[in-house]
Amino acid sequence: MVQTKTLPDRPLGIALIGTGFMGKCHAMAWRNVAAVFGGAHHRLEILSDATPESAKKFADQFGFARATARWEEAVTDPKVDVVSITAPNGMHRPMAEAALKAGKHVWLEKPMALTLADAEAMAATAAAYPGQVTMLGYNYLRSPAFQSARNMIRDGVIGQPLAFRGVYDEDYSADPLLPWSWRMTHEGGGLGALGDLGCHLVSHMLALMGPVTEVVAQTQVAIPTRPSPEGPKRVENEDSALAMLRFASGAQGSFATSRVARGRKCRLQWEVHGSEGTIVFDQENMNELWLHRAGEAGFTRHLTGPDQPDFAAFCPAPGHNFGFNEQKVVEARDLLAAIAGGPNVGPDFAQGLEIEKIIHAMAASNGSTIRIERVTR
Amino acid sequence: MVQTKTLPDRPLGIALIGTGFMGKCHAMAWRNVAAVFGGAHHRLEILSDATPESAKKFADQFGFARATARWEEAVTDPKVDVVSITAPNGMHRPMAEAALKAGKHVWLEKPMALTLADAEAMAATAAAYPGQVTMLGYNYLRSPAFQSARNMIRDGVIGQPLAFRGVYDEDYSADPLLPWSWRMTHEGGGLGALGDLGCHLVSHMLALMGPVTEVVAQTQVAIPTRPSPEGPKRVENEDSALAMLRFASGAQGSFATSRVARGRKCRLQWEVHGSEGTIVFDQENMNELWLHRAGEAGFTRHLTGPDQPDFAAFCPAPGHNFGFNEQKVVEARDLLAAIAGGPNVGPDFAQGLEIEKIIHAMAASNGSTIRIERVTR
Amino acid sequence: MVQTKTLPDRPLGIALIGTGFMGKCHAMAWRNVAAVFGGAHHRLEILSDATPESAKKFADQFGFARATARWEEAVTDPKVDVVSITAPNGMHRPMAEAALKAGKHVWLEKPMALTLADAEAMAATAAAYPGQVTMLGYNYLRSPAFQSARNMIRDGVIGQPLAFRGVYDEDYSADPLLPWSWRMTHEGGGLGALGDLGCHLVSHMLALMGPVTEVVAQTQVAIPTRPSPEGPKRVENEDSALAMLRFASGAQGSFATSRVARGRKCRLQWEVHGSEGTIVFDQENMNELWLHRAGEAGFTRHLTGPDQPDFAAFCPAPGHNFGFNEQKVVEARDLLAAIAGGPNVGPDFAQGLEIEKIIHAMAASNGSTIRIERVTR
Amino acid sequence: MVQTKTLPDRPLGIALIGTGFMGKCHAMAWRNVAAVFGGAHHRLEILSDATPESAKKFADQFGFARATARWEEAVTDPKVDVVSITAPNGMHRPMAEAALKAGKHVWLEKPMALTLADAEAMAATAAAYPGQVTMLGYNYLRSPAFQSARNMIRDGVIGQPLAFRGVYDEDYSADPLLPWSWRMTHEGGGLGALGDLGCHLVSHMLALMGPVTEVVAQTQVAIPTRPSPEGPKRVENEDSALAMLRFASGAQGSFATSRVARGRKCRLQWEVHGSEGTIVFDQENMNELWLHRAGEAGFTRHLTGPDQPDFAAFCPAPGHNFGFNEQKVVEARDLLAAIAGGPNVGPDFAQGLEIEKIIHAMAASNGSTIRIERVTR
Repeated sequence: MVQTKTLPDRPLGIALIGTGFMGKCHAMAWRNVAAVFGGAHHRLEILSDATPESAKKFADQFGFARATARWEEAVTDPKVDVVSITAPNGMHRPMAEAALKAGKHVWLEKPMALTLADAEAMAATAAAYPGQVTMLGYNYLRSPAFQSARNMIRDGVIGQPLAFRGVYDEDYSADPLLPWSWRMTHEGGGLGALGDLGCHLVSHMLALMGPVTEVVAQTQVAIPTRPSPEGPKRVENEDSALAMLRFASGAQGSFATSRVARGRKCRLQWEVHGSEGTIVFDQENMNELWLHRAGEAGFTRHLTGPDQPDFAAFCPAPGHNFGFNEQKVVEARDLLAAIAGGPNVGPDFAQGLEIEKIIHAMAASNGSTIRIERVTR
Repeated sequence: MVQTKTLPDRPLGIALIGTGFMGKCHAMAWRNVAAVFGGAHHRLEILSDATPESAKKFADQFGFARATARWEEAVTDPKVDVVSITAPNGMHRPMAEAALKAGKHVWLEKPMALTLADAEAMAATAAAYPGQVTMLGYNYLRSPAFQSARNMIRDGVIGQPLAFRGVYDEDYSADPLLPWSWRMTHEGGGLGALGDLGCHLVSHMLALMGPVTEVVAQTQVAIPTRPSPEGPKRVENEDSALAMLRFASGAQGSFATSRVARGRKCRLQWEVHGSEGTIVFDQENMNELWLHRAGEAGFTRHLTGPDQPDFAAFCPAPGHNFGFNEQKVVEARDLLAAIAGGPNVGPDFAQGLEIEKIIHAMAASNGSTIRIERVTR
Repeated sequence: MVQTKTLPDRPLGIALIGTGFMGKCHAMAWRNVAAVFGGAHHRLEILSDATPESAKKFADQFGFARATARWEEAVTDPKVDVVSITAPNGMHRPMAEAALKAGKHVWLEKPMALTLADAEAMAATAAAYPGQVTMLGYNYLRSPAFQSARNMIRDGVIGQPLAFRGVYDEDYSADPLLPWSWRMTHEGGGLGALGDLGCHLVSHMLALMGPVTEVVAQTQVAIPTRPSPEGPKRVENEDSALAMLRFASGAQGSFATSRVARGRKCRLQWEVHGSEGTIVFDQENMNELWLHRAGEAGFTRHLTGPDQPDFAAFCPAPGHNFGFNEQKVVEARDLLAAIAGGPNVGPDFAQGLEIEKIIHAMAASNGSTIRIERVTR
Repeated sequence: MVQTKTLPDRPLGIALIGTGFMGKCHAMAWRNVAAVFGGAHHRLEILSDATPESAKKFADQFGFARATARWEEAVTDPKVDVVSITAPNGMHRPMAEAALKAGKHVWLEKPMALTLADAEAMAATAAAYPGQVTMLGYNYLRSPAFQSARNMIRDGVIGQPLAFRGVYDEDYSADPLLPWSWRMTHEGGGLGALGDLGCHLVSHMLALMGPVTEVVAQTQVAIPTRPSPEGPKRVENEDSALAMLRFASGAQGSFATSRVARGRKCRLQWEVHGSEGTIVFDQENMNELWLHRAGEAGFTRHLTGPDQPDFAAFCPAPGHNFGFNEQKVVEARDLLAAIAGGPNVGPDFAQGLEIEKIIHAMAASNGSTIRIERVTR
């Protein structure tokens, strides 16, 4: 199950913007990708963060050669070939467009942008630089278990896919006493649960089921106001959303996401019913895949192992758990393989726009059916 | 947790129509209810089945005194007080109405009827005989785990309920080679998965969340034709259905049911997200309930035991599994408690009509929102 | 998977001694066995309990014709053919021997007796009445999942069995503040966890693995004293026990039981490693069996259903849970089939003595190896 | 839950011997430890492998500056401060002793050595160089879930520990057609399952329960011969082992390990019964910990998250899985903290010898009780 992809054989220069959750995750991916998958070790050239002090501190910790508090410097640095962007969502568009215009490859965290208009503009900019690779940070597409499920469906292991049932729930906003923040406004936070979580579920759904043709959805602000120093303030963007979908294949889908689901931590969970079997996955147990095939007695638990894509590069032994951060190493490899001239498995900015169209349609539906026009071929 | 309900202290006469899956289940319930819960032992007077021979055979096996191939005889028998109806769905209306008109209490298997018009007529008939008890066989409402979950939600254990997510999937029609049958037509089988399975999920949903105000749904005939001796024939009623719902409480719900979900045997599974916790249940593991409350580390698995309603009457020891058939003994007790003059916990025919209205609205929605008018107070 | 056993075609007279947990369970088994499996309905002749009042009350509730506070009367009643004995363990020997001497078949709850000497005497008495059937209440041998596992091992589904790993843990004595009782003495309670729980695990082990040739064990009184009105009193019999075993087949076994395992309610859990596969079972989820076979990706969860022994007589639908009490209906059927002249699948008193020898050897081992001599062929 | 340990603030020189499963794992740990935990980035000086070509290839891939096919060169290199030894077990003693004598700190993969005599000699050598740190690669001690469990037991969360029940099973030798190899001899492979797997379980047991005072064990060669080109050859070392243990605390333990347990991939599974609760862990689901405390309804599933030791340094979000390889990063941090002058959490060579004594006692017991003398204070 070891698939070798051709990787760049000369060192690339890397810039990293942001040092939070995802910033550190990108840094570790850059430190590991060559050790895991081979190819050249790349140069960690420059790291940008909010202040000169924090930039310097994290450049030292993550092993970057230089630091800056001016992201414009990082994205235009002549020694840089690839820019990792992990800044707040509202900065995605200016940073990504500046990097593209400076001739860089761009690795951008999801969601693409705060608004659909921004996402459309970014996809247009990316299209204007066809020689540069764009990649969005949909890391949950990279786990061996997910890749294995996707391949099994593609290869007909469960026959013709008839139905998708998916949820992505967390509880980071479940506490009604959680204070109001600008992230709960449209202007500051864009979509709510759909933007944070729902877009990941759409990325899985598209990879498993193919394009969506129509969607009808309902959203909910479950906790309408939040405390603030000035008293209760109104929450604008959705705490949860439900949707029903039709796929171009004729299959049917249900979709739900919530940021107020008490006890759920990373429940990106779905199942696909096929004419000859069913596959079930839950990211909270990302090292398990459950498969039932017609004629078998029940569901079989597949522990992640070297029989699944990309696992063997990390570890030769089954049942030895793959980690969340390692997904990002696979993502870096996918980006590098595209830079080396191989196909871009994406999602690139065009495919990212497709995801944005679907979640914005959900946000706007209010119980009415909306047709989805395709962005990509 | 032992709640004593007053039961009839004089023996009632029982008639049973039908001897299949549910017929046997009713017979065992009648044989056990007094031994388990106390009260009088009732007289198993007469059993009706398709032929004199099968009626006689099963009357002997189940311990009924007399047998008949004419159901009219059973429902009008002067020694009979209660009629258990487990005949094919198309016979529910004539049998139930005849029994009511003959002055009997009626215990009827779900779904109420093939058509909404029939269900409405039956509810009207029942309303005309207010001194007679009607009870529908929604046995999944009776398990200790379900009752415990319902009570916890009612008592605020998870705070204010915000969202319901439910599915009921089986795979009894999943094989594309399963031959066409009259059950796959509207005239013979009424609704498909919604009638067989979906109505059970609605019964859980209403008990947990209260009344529904609107629904939007999509149905699917996943396997459009089935083999028959005359060649492929078209399937009319739905293999699966999806819905989104609003509750009078302001909460939101998602709903899915399928009879073509490979590997699922009795997956009546739901979760309720509350402002202070989450409850999760799956009928395939009907002796487990999963509860998370704000501040706890994760979900706790509650094994069924005497701390849950009605279990102690069957067994004093926790972790000793309650069985599917025992749900029916609880249902018989509920029926008898209503006959003895206590409140009818239902679903009676009025509440059953409410369930029917919802599933027929789902069947008719085709992506449009339908308002649900309440039947009961 | 419906195996029909010949059952008595004439009604037998039944006596029941005891009305607690197991008394009620026997009563329900007698009320159901014919309805479930066919054959004659038997006469519930006489029930014996501690006082005339309780005997009368439970005779009415369970449907027995007569009541007595003198067990001697029940075991010698001329209308009685079979005696169900569910009295305290210290009464098992006198009751069972009196019943045998009165010409009755005996259905006796486990453990057989308080002492090994008593068990030996009882086996000798039973051997003196070869025309009368004895059956011990090892109900966990009767579930469809257990029977299916036993058959799979017998049929070579997992190849040659190499190792058994079993535990039976509960927590009924885990609270250190639980008061001292005579059940914690050798004279009053016999063995502790080994007698209550361990013997069940031995019954599974022998059924799956065949005879034991040697055992080495350790016991533990985890909570050495218990509160009593006179101050702390010493606990004599074991709270927990560990053992290692050799089987005649050459396989190896590990064994553990505890009555002080916090959170365990009915964890009779084991796995058998075979040369070509592994089977795993846990009574707390008695409707699941987990099977792995060489070449498969992992363990498959088999939900109980009509493909497993005896389930179809209760219910035609898979995934519809079998209950603890229904095990006893299967046990009644097994007893009746032996009375009707079929083979006694046991455990009869000779096989029960074999179980007692093993648990008493465990209690006595104190880290030394003890050879087990076989009782039965 | 972020505990900061002081790490070296000047770069150390690192040598790595071996490039297989564990070699790659050490390399990634060295590449990540500073990025994750802070402190100086260390110099990857020299890598040693079997041939000059493979050494060069892996030095390039893992980012080491130089390569050699002579391990003696790596362990004596003047620019090297720490030697990672991941060579075959038979080489552990000469390599570790040479490194110690050359003034290096030693990070050695388990098991320490092929024979108890070798382990004793190595511990003596380490004792002669008290200024140099030794650390053994018991990576399963490092996961956040394990550390959390250990801390909870230490802090009395489950009261007084009464019993340990542990297994470590895999199936890498389960196939009877797996060819004979020198690893199946005492001379080439040392102990079998006890050396490969059992020692890990002992490391967990000691960390959770404290010192062992006596052990009685049984071993088994389940598949006595294996195919070879010269015909079937005899397997010398054990395929599986069982043991019962007494701890200095008075608690009791059971222990089992197998390399022929079909379907088990990394089942390092144990539970600890305490007077006030129970903890359960399984390495195959290393991101889950199950806790029951007196008074709670059942077991609660704790997903790994930043509330557990060391997780937050990798990821701020609960439910985002920690990976097998990340355990090794924690181990590197523990080694570096000891080098920086903090306490050595071990296992160092003295503690490693204690583990070896226990597994060699198990191998020798043959059903007799063996007292264990303590190595460490």
